[in-house]
Amino acid sequence: MKLSQIGELSLLDRLRKRFCTRSRGLILGIGDDAAVISPCGKTLVTSDMMVEGVHFDLSWTTPFQLGFKLVSVNISDIYAMGGIPRYILLNFAASKDCTTRFFEDFFDGIEHALKTYAVSLVGGDISASDRIMLSVTAIGSAETVIRRQGARVGDRIYVTGTLGDAACGLELLRKLKRTVDLEKGRRYALPLAREAAVHLMLRHLMPVARDPSELRGKATAMIDVSDGLLIDLGRLCRESGVGARIRAQDIPLSDALKDAASSLGLSAVTLALSGGEDYELLFTASPKKKIDAACIGEVIRSGIMVVDGKGRRMNISHKGYQHFAVQG
Amino acid sequence: MKLSQIGELSLLDRLRKRFCTRSRGLILGIGDDAAVISPCGKTLVTSDMMVEGVHFDLSWTTPFQLGFKLVSVNISDIYAMGGIPRYILLNFAASKDCTTRFFEDFFDGIEHALKTYAVSLVGGDISASDRIMLSVTAIGSAETVIRRQGARVGDRIYVTGTLGDAACGLELLRKLKRTVDLEKGRRYALPLAREAAVHLMLRHLMPVARDPSELRGKATAMIDVSDGLLIDLGRLCRESGVGARIRAQDIPLSDALKDAASSLGLSAVTLALSGGEDYELLFTASPKKKIDAACIGEVIRSGIMVVDGKGRRMNISHKGYQHFAVQG
Repeated sequence: MKLSQIGELSLLDRLRKRFCTRSRGLILGIGDDAAVISPCGKTLVTSDMMVEGVHFDLSWTTPFQLGFKLVSVNISDIYAMGGIPRYILLNFAASKDCTTRFFEDFFDGIEHALKTYAVSLVGGDISASDRIMLSVTAIGSAETVIRRQGARVGDRIYVTGTLGDAACGLELLRKLKRTVDLEKGRRYALPLAREAAVHLMLRHLMPVARDPSELRGKATAMIDVSDGLLIDLGRLCRESGVGARIRAQDIPLSDALKDAASSLGLSAVTLALSGGEDYELLFTASPKKKIDAACIGEVIRSGIMVVDGKGRRMNISHKGYQHFAVQG
Repeated sequence: MKLSQIGELSLLDRLRKRFCTRSRGLILGIGDDAAVISPCGKTLVTSDMMVEGVHFDLSWTTPFQLGFKLVSVNISDIYAMGGIPRYILLNFAASKDCTTRFFEDFFDGIEHALKTYAVSLVGGDISASDRIMLSVTAIGSAETVIRRQGARVGDRIYVTGTLGDAACGLELLRKLKRTVDLEKGRRYALPLAREAAVHLMLRHLMPVARDPSELRGKATAMIDVSDGLLIDLGRLCRESGVGARIRAQDIPLSDALKDAASSLGLSAVTLALSGGEDYELLFTASPKKKIDAACIGEVIRSGIMVVDGKGRRMNISHKGYQHFAVQG
């Protein structure tokens, strides 16, 4: 069945029933001209969009994965400020020929993300469009906001998790060119290499934003790695008015990335430095603080340099994804 | 010059400088992972999108008008809850071939709207896309929220301004098929009919959301007329669990609408009942309250009926724009 056989009003009714929710601070959710919340303290707001053919390719992305990722990328921005996500508003535009199956699977992914991050869907809009266009606004709260600004010379630079996985996963999906329903708990009988591939593809398809709970009171500046380590580090440094010295060999790489990069003929370190969408947290902290994350370098006065195991400066361009730019 | 010659990061920098703002309650605006605000009391949030070819046609809409309208339609939702708009977040997606002139004119329209409504742009996203896709999230505050729910049997039904103008203006633009830079204060030497046409086209191209200040403490239920009087009245009644009796001859019509409808061979009353995008406020209030708006009917137990000057029930279908529906 197609969305055109149901119509906007019925779709909105379905969503309203499905996402009817009670949560602390929520006075009124979906169903009126605006949602009403009662925030306490500082409130964080951020909005990001995802456009078919630009941010995702339905040749290898399932609607469930798409819904989950859409929420994750926005939650990641709340986390990157040291905040606790609370609510989202969602705009969904698709063609009239979009199937109700797609719509339901997409909102299954949204619901899975809402549970993952303990947030409520409180409003938004649906519309016709010839391509799928999505946007989410996330609202969160924070007692102490961790900004991009705040890094001091001598601070150490840390990153959570491992980097480069999502970019490598995307390379694998571009070769595979089909969807992989990884999220439904299906068991694959996989050789090790296949397990690695699944891990990497999932990092691209269904990134899980990194909760900064452990970093509050420690991080002096923070950003999420969405466009690539070098580009996001550049942003943090620019806002803080500092530079950075990164030790390439200390960048955390997963075994899956090392295996896959080698079989794809790619450099794992380059993927980790320039590949986007890992949604890990990149932050700085005083050397006096005990931090449970990989230390990859330190804050210096100016310039951004990457050094190899022998301390020699590596020649790496600051590449990362940029909209409207002719990609080199 | 095209956006692809500038790139996302430079565009973001331009916007950040242009919309750098200080306002009460705003802790951090554009430039970090999320904006930080310090709301007091109840906070309203709403998000709407506008998609090229669905919500607007660049054959007759200038980028300035588009920017202004995008903000207006979202502010209207804050106003419809009895709120005071404070902040917006804006997502802008356009093709790489989009010109910087378009981009600048669009943001001129945004800026004009920000001044009109005394709100600040605090965040958002820009992206490439093959069509223009826009979304805005508006954030406001309200001491007392006026919901769709709350109308009581015996309440009178009111509407601000005049209805049908925007729908008639759209009909005129469809015939004209070219842009009209009405907003730049240009003087046209117009016969009366041309003045009327300009009024109507402006109502469609640059709607000004209606401030509800005078209605606080009086309106029992409220909604903005975005999809058409009948469809929006239906929503208000459904939420309130009541019906409505509307007197067609009391619906406020502009002289411009009457003139234009007659020359187009359309019914002014039908345009006022079913035409969307007037962004006026439809609300109910006790007969005891003194209200400065047109009284168009009263709240009854159930059903929605429209009666003519002699009290005879008129046969009018509840038409209004609905996405994904095959329009009859």
